[in-house]
Parts: sequence; structure tokens; C-alpha cells
Amino acid sequence: MPKKPKGKLRVIPLGGLNEIGKNLTVLEYENDIIIIDCGLGFPDEDMLGVDLVIPDISYLESNKEKIRGVLLTHGHEDHIGAIPYLLRQINPPIYGTKLTLGIIENKLEEHILPFEPKLVCVSAGDVVKLGDFSVEFIHVNHSIADACALAITTPLGVVVHSGDFKLDITPIDGDMMNITRLGEIGKKGTLLLMCESTNAERAGFTPSEKKVGKSLESIFTANRDKRIVIATFSSNVHRVQQIINTSIAHGRRVAVTGRSMLNILGAAVELGYMTVPEGVLVDVNELKRFKPEEITLITTGSQGEPMSALYRMAFADHSQIVLGPNDLVVLSASPIPGNEKLIGRIINELTKNGVSVLHDAVAEVHVSGHACQEEIKLLQALVKPKYYMPVHGEYRHLAANRALAQDMGIDDSRIFLSDIGKVLEIDTRGARFAGTVPAGKVLVDGYGVGDVGNIVLRDRRHLAQDGLIVVVASVDMESGLLLSGPDIVSRGFVYVRESEELMEEVKQVALDALNRCLLKERAVDRMELKNSVKDDLSKFLYSKTKRKPMVLPVIMNL
Amino acid sequence: MPKKPKGKLRVIPLGGLNEIGKNLTVLEYENDIIIIDCGLGFPDEDMLGVDLVIPDISYLESNKEKIRGVLLTHGHEDHIGAIPYLLRQINPPIYGTKLTLGIIENKLEEHILPFEPKLVCVSAGDVVKLGDFSVEFIHVNHSIADACALAITTPLGVVVHSGDFKLDITPIDGDMMNITRLGEIGKKGTLLLMCESTNAERAGFTPSEKKVGKSLESIFTANRDKRIVIATFSSNVHRVQQIINTSIAHGRRVAVTGRSMLNILGAAVELGYMTVPEGVLVDVNELKRFKPEEITLITTGSQGEPMSALYRMAFADHSQIVLGPNDLVVLSASPIPGNEKLIGRIINELTKNGVSVLHDAVAEVHVSGHACQEEIKLLQALVKPKYYMPVHGEYRHLAANRALAQDMGIDDSRIFLSDIGKVLEIDTRGARFAGTVPAGKVLVDGYGVGDVGNIVLRDRRHLAQDGLIVVVASVDMESGLLLSGPDIVSRGFVYVRESEELMEEVKQVALDALNRCLLKERAVDRMELKNSVKDDLSKFLYSKTKRKPMVLPVIMNL
Repeated sequence: MPKKPKGKLRVIPLGGLNEIGKNLTVLEYENDIIIIDCGLGFPDEDMLGVDLVIPDISYLESNKEKIRGVLLTHGHEDHIGAIPYLLRQINPPIYGTKLTLGIIENKLEEHILPFEPKLVCVSAGDVVKLGDFSVEFIHVNHSIADACALAITTPLGVVVHSGDFKLDITPIDGDMMNITRLGEIGKKGTLLLMCESTNAERAGFTPSEKKVGKSLESIFTANRDKRIVIATFSSNVHRVQQIINTSIAHGRRVAVTGRSMLNILGAAVELGYMTVPEGVLVDVNELKRFKPEEITLITTGSQGEPMSALYRMAFADHSQIVLGPNDLVVLSASPIPGNEKLIGRIINELTKNGVSVLHDAVAEVHVSGHACQEEIKLLQALVKPKYYMPVHGEYRHLAANRALAQDMGIDDSRIFLSDIGKVLEIDTRGARFAGTVPAGKVLVDGYGVGDVGNIVLRDRRHLAQDGLIVVVASVDMESGLLLSGPDIVSRGFVYVRESEELMEEVKQVALDALNRCLLKERAVDRMELKNSVKDDLSKFLYSKTKRKPMVLPVIMNL
Repeated sequence: MPKKPKGKLRVIPLGGLNEIGKNLTVLEYENDIIIIDCGLGFPDEDMLGVDLVIPDISYLESNKEKIRGVLLTHGHEDHIGAIPYLLRQINPPIYGTKLTLGIIENKLEEHILPFEPKLVCVSAGDVVKLGDFSVEFIHVNHSIADACALAITTPLGVVVHSGDFKLDITPIDGDMMNITRLGEIGKKGTLLLMCESTNAERAGFTPSEKKVGKSLESIFTANRDKRIVIATFSSNVHRVQQIINTSIAHGRRVAVTGRSMLNILGAAVELGYMTVPEGVLVDVNELKRFKPEEITLITTGSQGEPMSALYRMAFADHSQIVLGPNDLVVLSASPIPGNEKLIGRIINELTKNGVSVLHDAVAEVHVSGHACQEEIKLLQALVKPKYYMPVHGEYRHLAANRALAQDMGIDDSRIFLSDIGKVLEIDTRGARFAGTVPAGKVLVDGYGVGDVGNIVLRDRRHLAQDGLIVVVASVDMESGLLLSGPDIVSRGFVYVRESEELMEEVKQVALDALNRCLLKERAVDRMELKNSVKDDLSKFLYSKTKRKPMVLPVIMNL
């Protein structure tokens, strides 16, 4: 009989709960820590000027010596995008499948690192021993190839992490999610299932990727006279493979544009995730040698990204490709919430240029990569976990996932709706929340990591709303004499050339405010001068314009 | 025999084409002008700080003496919202149905006008004579009561403008769109049909408003133990009526919160568009007298608006109402593109507080107010226009509408895809585009109308992205002596307290740039000093941070 483990297992999400993206989960048992995924998130619309959001990993930094490795479920940005930032602080071995590591290697070329990263390639079925943990990679279907769930044997039992998954009974590579293995593990009983929640609000099953292939087939058949341009996510290698297959079947050559599409295509072909027969690919520079209807063009930009190849083609800013009435553009993607307007702009512009456009609202040109309600319940039924934790999603998604677990008969007391930084502690007596560790959003802006915070963002929002007015004056503080100014500079407030009268009034209000202070009997300080200018001007401007520009007084003491 | 008219009819959209909202169309024949609708639009996400967008009406201002009247199709903001701004310039009589004018009167109370507006109440079926035009109001269904299409008899023939419409065979007020009258007019032949394009990409028919009533019935039945809170558009009086009816049927009292909901409910009841039996309405302050399950609460905020009643309830900021596990919130609306994230935030917060939430993605709690493809084709079939112009929509919608007209056999040469400011000229010889008049977007920010333009917006976007750095120095320009500074002030760039080293470097770079100029043999001017500081600092900051804050040098000459 194995003796009863005395330690506690701590399950600590550092990202991906109550938010979309930046997925990172920590498992800790005594002196061992393993990290599941290390992704980035995209800024909310009120995080002006911010490029990326990464998880706060200070908990990992202060427990460096315990970290045994990072386990990656798949190669999407929200699961691997923060790896370069993690590697600046710590250098644990990173375990992932071939395609996942291929994408990371590509990514790391853009970052200068203090040391060589330790990338360890695994395949589905492999087991990795990391301290007290032993991790099995289990094949799942997703909108990227080579995705895995993880079954982590701990001294207290098996923890299953779903990663991002769907059950595709007819996947492009023929390799269905390994529900048999998950069922075998479940039969023996598991301690905890952490299951993604992205589509937990959606009923039924997510359709197979093959469905898109069928749509493509009929689109190609109906558009024999046109060049076909298809925008999709570059990492969706199975989608790209289907586009290539359909093109070959219709006697078309394939050209590829967009940096990330070219990168991933290269990696996927090299690593054997994609098959492109000799002679099918054509360089975009050589498109002129072919008739338009002999070509399929695969491109980035399905989310309307303003620097993407599709955007540049739509707005006649692409050096090699001009789109017109001979082109059909297929947006083989669904809009990520927040991108609807950008995508709409591209559709309008393409339509104006006579291009025909198909998108997911009018044709079945996309399927999700995430499990819907029946698939989530299937996983619950197979894994039979003692405890359950919905992960990956906003609160509404986590709550919808919880409702599914309740439907499946998992008792409410055994379902844990956690949050980033919240510690779930499990031992032989049970499971419970036990305090928190530091967690949050670290904002990346240019080279700066974490130097943009609430104060900076508040100022940016203020400036964005109503602009600013700078008031500069030189004062001899001792004598109380105004030596020069006030000079007024404004930006983003009103069109100054057409508001001369207002700007004169602004100057007068500032002058009056300065004089009112300077002419006092007692000595005044710069702060008093500044505040008086700021208060008077703000009041004046609001009464006059109903706007609140930032008023920035600079008093020089000469 | 009437003699052949010699004049030209000019059809000039000043808003609503290639954009959503700010609908305004001008019809001009010789010395007469009539205006159809006068709406506002909402700012694009890159129009930072802008409150509203209204049409450029300079063409109307310079043709004041010709204007015979404004004809309003219905009371939505995108059709009437710019009336207060129009009235500041010109004071033509305004014709609209009872509810439309009731809403305008409400709105005009917030604006101080130089004269009393001339509001003329009409009913569907009425004919108004305006110079050479004679306008018949024709009842249509829409998501607001009392909506009309217009049939305008001109010397050259009849122009039909659809307004916003749908065909509701079972409308709440029993009054189906008057397709008979439209058919009668069509039988005699019409010159031009201007038809809205909002749903021109959607196949089939828009469902009846009654469908929402059926969903409400089952929602109320399934939630007998809960307070039911329903957010919808305040102007959708039929939706509100259905909510009230269902509440009565289930023995509930109704409370109303949100300023615009209270306003419109008041006007609608007073004008007879809504029926609320005595004793049904309860003041929100008296909700405590009832059990939660005895109450339905109707509220604003279905688009996630941050100041709305629902938002304040969700974020525990409403003075009278706290929502919790005893509440069901129904979002009886679909997200207007761009609002998805705001609405998502409310759903998350409500779910966190244990509130159940139903929205249009998970329940049939909303139907559109706009015609889908079959309804648009039905109107084309009834009106039988010689010429056709799609209106109300972005280019994609106008183009989809055109495709419907082509399907219906209207020859391409008789379909005109116009734009704002573009003049369609029609005479006895035919129809053609003939030049343009001034048109565009006038931005309203606070009290300012038109004083925020491209330069101001460009600066706001720049400031929003990376903040600013102000560099102030006092210089004796004659002697070339630096008297004081440079002082550095930054906002929205980096968190200064944690970037002292960087700010010291910034100061040094600015100082070096100033000295490099001042130590030159020849005289320098302020512009040269400014440019040199700006260039050096911008380069330095980009190399150091990969950001481009606005650099604002202020040189005081002492």
C-alpha cells in the first residue's frame, strides 16, 4: 500500500480566468512547481496605446528554485505568447509538441534573450517526469494542429487540464481527440478536471473542420471565373491545408501573402504538418504569369488588422496585388469581439472595388476550434473528476461551464470557480480555497514591460477625450513678478486657428489667475500658482465648451 | 394633357449613405426644397472625445429661401437627432406623426433655440403640399410606433422613400404596413424608390414583433420565483407594451427606471401609443412594498451604456435597486456593432452577482425593426420604380440592396448607388449623376459644433497612444543664453516616479539639443530650437522605448 501523501497540491491560475487570453496555470506540490501554458492577452479598448498584456509572474519569480518546467498545450498566442517575457526572468525547460515549439522558435528570433532557451519536444502519448509530477500529453482537436490536453499525475491523484479543445470526429489529419485515453484515465478516477469555457454558452457540438472544406468546395465550384482570395488565421494549418487541397482539385496554383502566414506555412511544411505537392505554390511576385482564375491567394487579415496583407490589398496599399471585380474574397474566420468594425471596414472597401465578399454571416466558411456544451459534458463524463474547475473565459463563460458540471451531477461543493491569483489547495482531507498570490495584468508598450499602469492610462484617456492646454509662465518667485507669459499651447482641444477668440480668453483667464496669486501680500509658491491657473482655466473651459481638457501649467522660476 | 415639366428634380443625400446614421435626404425642384429626416450619427472609435456626428448642412444654409419643410419618417435619433442643430440655422416647418413630434418636443427642451420651432402634426394617409411637392405619409412597421414611408409627388413623377421599415403581418397595434396603398401608387408607375438597406445582407423576412411576446411569455412562466428585469430600447413602445402586457398576465406590477425610458413611456401613454391599466405601474422607490417575484422592472442600458440604469444596477451603483440571485435580467436587444464588449462587461458583472441573464444569443428576446431581403424585394415589386436608389447603410449594405434590385429585374442603368453630397438629377430625358454639393460629418463635442476636425483628432489619437512630453525653456534669443530649464513634464508616457533615470536622460537630450543650437555662430530662432528639441527627443525616446510620445517644446523668449 502506498502511504498517504502528506503534502498539499496547490492549483494557482495566474491568467485566463475572468478574462480572455494570457492563460497560465501553476501546479505546486511541496518543492515542485510546473507551469501550464504562458500566453498573452490583448489590451481592452480603454488600455490606450498598450500593445500586449502578459500575466504578472512575480509569484514564479519568487519561487524560481521550485520550477521544474513549462508545459504547453498548443501554439496559439494566448498560450505561448508570454514565453519570451517569462524567459527574461527564469529559464525552465519548455515542453511542447513539434509544431508548438516550431512556432516558439520563430517567435524567439525577435527577442534577445540572456540565455539559450531549453525547448524539449514531446509527442502526444509521451510522459514527462517533473519532480513529484508526471505529465502525459493527450491528443485533442483544435484550430491548430498538435494540440494536447494534459493528464498530470500528482501524489494526490490525477489532474486533467483540457487545454483548448474540440472533438472533431472527422479531423483533417484523421487524428481524432484521444477520448479513449481520457476515458481510461477517468476510469481509474481523477482528482481534478480543469476544462476550458470559451464556448460553454453554446449548445450542441462544434461542427467538424471538414464542414468548411465542403463549403470551400461549393464556393470554388461557383466561382470558376474568379481569383479566390481567402483570409484565415495563419496558425490554422488544417484550414490552410483544406484551401490548398481544394485549389489543387480545381486546378489552381496557390500563392501566400502576409508575414505570419508565410512563417507558419514554412514551419508547418517543414515539420510535416502540411503537404503541398511540388509546383502548387507560386510566389506572389509571379502571379502575372497566371490568369486570375488559376490562382488561390491565402492571406492574413481575417480580423481586419490594419497592417495585415488583406487590409493593404483592400485599401490599394499592397505592392504586388490589386483586387477588383475578378476577385472573390472569403473571410474564413469569425470576428473576435471588438473587431467587428475593423472587419466591416474591409468588407465595405472591397465591395466598393467591385470585389465579391463571403464572410461567416453569409456562408459557412468557418467553424470554431472550441468545445461546445455537449463536448464539455462529454469530457466531464469521461474524466469523472472529483473536483472541477472551469478555466479559460470571462466570468459568464466560467459560470456557464459550472452549470454544465452541475447538470452532469458534480456536486456544487466540488466545483471551484476560481480567479487569477486564487489558490485552490487540495490534500487528502479535501479541497478548499486557501488565500491568494500576486496576480494581474502587466502591460507591454513598446519595449516597456510594466511601466504603463493606471496613472499613465488615466492620463492617456483624459488626453484622448479632450486634449490638453499647456500654460507656461516665467516668474520671479521672490519678487512675485511675472517675467514672461503666460504662453498658451493647446493640442487636441479645438482647432486653434478658428478659435482665436477663445484662446485669447484662455490667456486672459490664466493671466488673471497668476496675477491674483502674485499680487497677494504673502509669498506664494509654484504649486499655488499652478493650482490656481488649473482651477480657473478648467472652470472657464467647461462653462464655455462643456469639455475638460487636461490643463498643464508649467511655472518657471527665474 | 398636362404639359411636360421642364425642370429638373435633384435628389441629394446629405447623410445615411456609406455610413450608419445621420440620415438626411434633400429633394429639390426648381425653387423648392424639401428635407427628408435630419438624424445624427455616433462617432467612430477613432473620433476620440466626440459626442455626436451630424450632417454638414451648408448646402441647406445657402439655399435657405427654397426650403419648404422637413418631413420626418419616425422618431429615432438617426432620423431626428440633428433637428436641434438644423434649427439653429434655419426654421422650416417640421412635419411628423404624433409620437415623432412628441419625442422631438422632449428633446428640444434641452436646447435653447433662437425661435419657436414650427412642428406640424400629421397622420398616416395625410398629404402635405410643399411648393411643387406633395407628400403623402404611408404607415409602415418599425421598431418604433408611428413610422411612415413617404410618397412624394413631384412634377416629374412620384418618389417613394421607404424610411426605416419592416413588414409585420401581426404587429402589436394591429396596424400592418400599408402595402395596399404602396401597391396603388406603384400601379400608376413611380419615378424613383429610395429604399433602406440596413438588413439587405440578410435573407428571408424579419420576424414579427409578436415573436418576442411569445418568448417573454415562456420566460415569465419559467421564472415565476424571480424578479424580472428587462432592458430594451426606450423608443420601442411596442416592445415595452408587450412587457407590460405579459407582466399583467402574470400578476406582476411594473416599475420603470432610466431617464429616457421614463420620458418615452410618459409621452407614449399620454399620446395614446401605450395602454397601462391603473395600478400596474409602481414607483421604483416603492419596490420594497412588493415581493421581488411580483415585479417586472423595465430599464435602459441594453447596449451596455456606462451611464445607463442597467449598468449602474450591475455595478451596484444604482440608488434604489440591487440585483442578485433572485433576479433574471433579459437583454431584449441585439448589440449594435461596437457595443459587444460593453454588453459583455454587464453580463459578466451580473453573472458574478448571481443574476441569471438572457440575451439574444441564447434566447429569442429580440427581433429587428428593419426589412430583410424578401421585404425589400416586396417593396420593389409593389412600387415598381423607374429608378432605384439604395439608402441607409454602409457600402456593403447599399451594394447588397442593389443586388436585390438587379434580381428583381431593375436594369443596372436605372439603379443609382449614390453617396452623400452626390446629386442625382432627373428630368424628362432620364436620370444621371450631376456633380456634388458640400457634405460630410460635422463633429459635436460638448457645446462645440464643428470645431473638432482632423487636426484635433490626429492630436488626440497621438496623445492617446503614447502620451506627451512637454519641454519648457527660457532663452534670451538675442544673446543666445539659456536662462532657465529645460523643465520636463510628461503625462501618459511612463510612470515618472519609476522612470527617474529615463527622465534625467530626457532632460539631458533636450539640453544638448538646445545648446547645440544656441552655441552656433549665427542667430537662431524659436522654431529652430523647437524643431531641434523635438527631433532629438523623438529619436531618443523611440530608440529607448519604441514609443512615440508627442514632444511639445515651449521656448520662452525673455
